[in-house]
Amino acid sequence: MSTQTRIVFIVSDGTGITAENFSQSILAQFEAIFRHIRVPFVDSPDKAHDAVTSINQAASKYGVPPIVFTTLVNPKLNAIVGKANGVILDMFQTFVAPLEQALGIKSTHAMNRLHHDTDAYKNRIEAINYSLAHDDGQSNRNLAEADVILVGISRVGKTPTSLYLAMQYGMKAANYPLIPEDFERGQLPKDLVPYRHKIFGLMIDAERLSEIRNERRPGSNYAKLENCRYEINEAMAMMKKESIPWVVTTSKSIEEIATTVLQSIKSDKTILG
Amino acid sequence: MSTQTRIVFIVSDGTGITAENFSQSILAQFEAIFRHIRVPFVDSPDKAHDAVTSINQAASKYGVPPIVFTTLVNPKLNAIVGKANGVILDMFQTFVAPLEQALGIKSTHAMNRLHHDTDAYKNRIEAINYSLAHDDGQSNRNLAEADVILVGISRVGKTPTSLYLAMQYGMKAANYPLIPEDFERGQLPKDLVPYRHKIFGLMIDAERLSEIRNERRPGSNYAKLENCRYEINEAMAMMKKESIPWVVTTSKSIEEIATTVLQSIKSDKTILG
Repeated sequence: MSTQTRIVFIVSDGTGITAENFSQSILAQFEAIFRHIRVPFVDSPDKAHDAVTSINQAASKYGVPPIVFTTLVNPKLNAIVGKANGVILDMFQTFVAPLEQALGIKSTHAMNRLHHDTDAYKNRIEAINYSLAHDDGQSNRNLAEADVILVGISRVGKTPTSLYLAMQYGMKAANYPLIPEDFERGQLPKDLVPYRHKIFGLMIDAERLSEIRNERRPGSNYAKLENCRYEINEAMAMMKKESIPWVVTTSKSIEEIATTVLQSIKSDKTILG
Repeated sequence: MSTQTRIVFIVSDGTGITAENFSQSILAQFEAIFRHIRVPFVDSPDKAHDAVTSINQAASKYGVPPIVFTTLVNPKLNAIVGKANGVILDMFQTFVAPLEQALGIKSTHAMNRLHHDTDAYKNRIEAINYSLAHDDGQSNRNLAEADVILVGISRVGKTPTSLYLAMQYGMKAANYPLIPEDFERGQLPKDLVPYRHKIFGLMIDAERLSEIRNERRPGSNYAKLENCRYEINEAMAMMKKESIPWVVTTSKSIEEIATTVLQSIKSDKTILG
């Protein structure tokens, strides 16, 4: 087991965010400490040489070649960065060659092709605006437009999940709180009834919920374990009665919760459940 | 140039979101139509066999083996999926082997190691809550806590960028509108003055702005090209006078805008500018 910090460069002609996310998940497999340095928008020979200089400086400073993930479409820029004093892991070329063979066509070597889809962009912005306007039951208008309506008690993760679904998938994700009045009536909030088929529930462990609520309102009845247990039991009874699918969010990341929601509601088979 | 739709599977023991993003950007290099199917949470032999069945069915149905990106940590599951009738692109093993050699240590083969960092998770949720509470100048409280304050005129992209910075990087990103009253006074909103060092401006082309505003308020003075030009010129003059860095968002994705903001404000060198 090494305790030395290893420097990791991510060199991309775009933002490098996807490559950085990938690098973080694969390096989480190693018991070592990594420091990530992202070098985005490397779209000219000058910038490629600058990246090489940074990598070589890090190699000298730490006495060991940095790990370098590259996603460079342009072969010239790729060749420049490929000569840096680092362990080069070429995410682009590694997969382009077998893809060219499998598809029987050549890649276009065009940078940033993904970003010019303005319809998808507009869709995404609209979804974010929709989710913001329909956060925490703020508005009952246009719920018919929602792709999904997340329900759950307070502090269960509805807001981040809605925003993530909007941001990543352009989904109009509303969210609606379940409150003690709903439990007393023993019924879903009436505005939601027509949309039962697109409701998804978020649940959480009582201990974790009490912890989270105590951070916000220390010592309140709202945060008491006993009250958290009551709300959770009532919410669970309602989900079951109304046949609403649900997921326990306690130890899940926002991405995991969002993926589980998608698996449950998607009918167009872009995801397998 | 092929016009046949090719099926692309992303098989992952986690959410598969990173692999899906990567697959989309690399396939954007090919002039073909792709349909992505994500198969998340493949963490047992049964689920691996189910994935193989889906891949093989698609191969039969379309008469051509699908493209299959895999990120499976477990060698047994990887071997099962590796036998599917597809063009297997193993994102995990391809890079783990050279990394093991470079680092001189073995990978742990543990699934989902990344998600158990609860501090990072808490930080991220707090940042989202902060950014929501400080959206569109809603609150002047705790601006001292902000990692960045985005400023700009209406509909320039402040809200999605703030939320993205919070979601992806756990940054407390406030945003504040610049309005005609600020231009008449010729000064930054006074609540922002103490924080000038962490302000970043978003700008946009007048034509595009007019288009966006017309979608929201058709035919309004607010949306008129002339008015958009006025607001943009005034905002630009203010940025220059106050030495505030800025970026034009017109044809940029949220990720590109966020990356540019980070390059400008980051002092801890996790990103190179």
